[in-house]
Amino acid sequence: MSGRPLTTDVSDALARRAAAVIPGGLWGHQHTRFLTPDHPQFVAESEGARFTDVDGNEFIDLMCAWGPMILGYRNAAVDSAARTQAELGDTQNGPAPVLVDLCELLVETIDHADWAVLGKNGTDATTACLTIARAATGRETILLARGSYHGAAPWATPFPAGVTAGDRAALDYFEYNDAASFEAAVERAGDRLAGVMVTPFRHVEGIANEDVDPEFARLLRRTCDAKGAVLILDDVRCGFRLNVGGSWEALGVAPDLSAWSKAIANGYPLAAVVGADGLREAAESVFLTGSFWTGAVAMAAAVATLEILREGGAFEQMTASGERLRKGIEAQISALENTKARYTGPVTMPYVVFDDDGGHERIEAFAVACLRHGLYLHPRHNWFLSAAHDDGVVDAALAATAAAFSEVDAAVASGRLVHTNP
Amino acid sequence: MSGRPLTTDVSDALARRAAAVIPGGLWGHQHTRFLTPDHPQFVAESEGARFTDVDGNEFIDLMCAWGPMILGYRNAAVDSAARTQAELGDTQNGPAPVLVDLCELLVETIDHADWAVLGKNGTDATTACLTIARAATGRETILLARGSYHGAAPWATPFPAGVTAGDRAALDYFEYNDAASFEAAVERAGDRLAGVMVTPFRHVEGIANEDVDPEFARLLRRTCDAKGAVLILDDVRCGFRLNVGGSWEALGVAPDLSAWSKAIANGYPLAAVVGADGLREAAESVFLTGSFWTGAVAMAAAVATLEILREGGAFEQMTASGERLRKGIEAQISALENTKARYTGPVTMPYVVFDDDGGHERIEAFAVACLRHGLYLHPRHNWFLSAAHDDGVVDAALAATAAAFSEVDAAVASGRLVHTNP
Repeated sequence: MSGRPLTTDVSDALARRAAAVIPGGLWGHQHTRFLTPDHPQFVAESEGARFTDVDGNEFIDLMCAWGPMILGYRNAAVDSAARTQAELGDTQNGPAPVLVDLCELLVETIDHADWAVLGKNGTDATTACLTIARAATGRETILLARGSYHGAAPWATPFPAGVTAGDRAALDYFEYNDAASFEAAVERAGDRLAGVMVTPFRHVEGIANEDVDPEFARLLRRTCDAKGAVLILDDVRCGFRLNVGGSWEALGVAPDLSAWSKAIANGYPLAAVVGADGLREAAESVFLTGSFWTGAVAMAAAVATLEILREGGAFEQMTASGERLRKGIEAQISALENTKARYTGPVTMPYVVFDDDGGHERIEAFAVACLRHGLYLHPRHNWFLSAAHDDGVVDAALAATAAAFSEVDAAVASGRLVHTNP
Repeated sequence: MSGRPLTTDVSDALARRAAAVIPGGLWGHQHTRFLTPDHPQFVAESEGARFTDVDGNEFIDLMCAWGPMILGYRNAAVDSAARTQAELGDTQNGPAPVLVDLCELLVETIDHADWAVLGKNGTDATTACLTIARAATGRETILLARGSYHGAAPWATPFPAGVTAGDRAALDYFEYNDAASFEAAVERAGDRLAGVMVTPFRHVEGIANEDVDPEFARLLRRTCDAKGAVLILDDVRCGFRLNVGGSWEALGVAPDLSAWSKAIANGYPLAAVVGADGLREAAESVFLTGSFWTGAVAMAAAVATLEILREGGAFEQMTASGERLRKGIEAQISALENTKARYTGPVTMPYVVFDDDGGHERIEAFAVACLRHGLYLHPRHNWFLSAAHDDGVVDAALAATAAAFSEVDAAVASGRLVHTNP
């Protein structure tokens, strides 16, 4: 395989120390067991759309820390706003004035939002949405699309270890974009239906991204209206990458609640629930809190991030770069001779699937080849662009994907990548 | 009532704006509805053991942001370590090397810890402890002391709105320090017992702090050993204020898991679960994650905080100041003529209860009087000291409590504070 050899001495030493004091060497989604063994685990430094691992290997980044970095790492305006607030205080005996600025800005920016509550994790926000919907309706059942990721709390985690039956006793599932499946779940819920939570499009690990069918979105809205249930949009992953506002605004479908995190403060830990006036009282009745939930630094970062996004230029840059990347990748795909592949998803959150790749051998080989050509992306999870991805970054990324596609194509031709797990 | 009049013009204007865009004007435990209407809601600036509200009113602080500030607000060494890491990166595609430094330091510092996993909220840590205990045992039931606060997730929140039956289906409750009550709960759990979670001492809102009975702690340990269940110490609130290590180390009772947050990074958002080797595999099997859980800045702050605490001087300063405050308050209490009161709890987390105060009128009047004399403390929640509380701060605090005790004593004598809610 061509490309640059990656040095791993420092990383290997850190991994050995980590294995001694952290179960499995690292928790969660960034563990390289979910990428490939070739992906670097420890990061030394990040800037804009690039980062350097602890061994000095430099990469163009297509993951944006799994979403948070929407303006690029170490954005000067965001970091400056955060530092200015930090010189006054962060976690204090009450919120700083920036709390009000931020909640006003969220309400101005997101059409369906009349109010906001802030937290720290995306899971804080999705969990709060469920609880608020239940408080508002006095009912328990929440419907979710099967396979959609809504967080790592026991009710939501994709891994069953330690989850009790009670954690999911009031949940039921339907297939995304499948009206009959949704209507059957609504029928099963009967008069217990409290709400429906859904992601803006179908972004499930290891399979093609899939746009929401606008008619399906309207069906969810109509059904919730008819049943007095709460429609919840989980915008944690997509938020501000499809629109400077709610992700379904272009569809004309307004949720009652939406959950936000990731990109809201360009990497500073923050989450939000925003909602409609009718749910204000329910939101007030639920005890939503944490030791750091009035921390002012992340709020100042969020205000700066939102102000930049609202100006428009950064969002246009990110989208234009996504278009450029999409066109380049589609051209590269069309030149493949021995395998087929498909670009899927919105241009700011793309993912590529290969045909005959049920075991993910081809996309993993592609990801490793990209890595050796200086581009970091994930073999199973959708990728992310930021406003720091300019033409130069995209063209460098495309040089890497071109080499990677060629190598995968050649490997398929030579029988080194066969379809093993349909 | 004597003391300084508090100006509230700026705060009132912010509160009006907040009420429009935040349900109830603010979420969570810092809402002044849980203090008194006289307590300031919005903070302009904090430093050391003091803060200034948005109207320019200055206070000596006995809440430490409800615990996080153990070295004082804006500690120079901690903030410097955080800034240095921030110049490299915070939320990135993987952890920074400081992850390993911090987990090693936690394992060195906490006797029962063989490994650590990090999160953002105290609730992240307590929830993870439950899930790990269940994964380890293959059983579901967790026993909790009635009234103990373990977080704001649906399984833990003290407020019932939006909580489902399933959220608590695998929980049962006993009375803190009551062996018979605990043994009855163990009996009810039978072969479903996965674990027991308990706070290091009984710190329940609005009532006297109560030390753990060492024999009760040993009973929990013996019972968990006999039943193959997991003993979980919730050290989120107490951690590093009773000991530079686990809070039960002086008792010689080692939990299998403990949950940490609040003071671990001197106000930077961080939480940790630490555990024994026997639970390493279970911890690895549970999907513990969040978008910001590898954020390096809070980890760098935690390393700096722990290094300072491990040097010993800061912990000694905090404890000595707590002793000084306790002696002063006890002397003031002994001089009361018309009401009785009692200092309770560890010296770094004190709380005062008045006799005949079931409705909390006296402690609320005391808190408001303190406020007018320049001291911020909570009428229902335990207070916190930090290493920034030096003799000058404590003596100024004692001047305020002296005036407040006098005023409450006079008010009781004049019949203005009567016992209304036994």
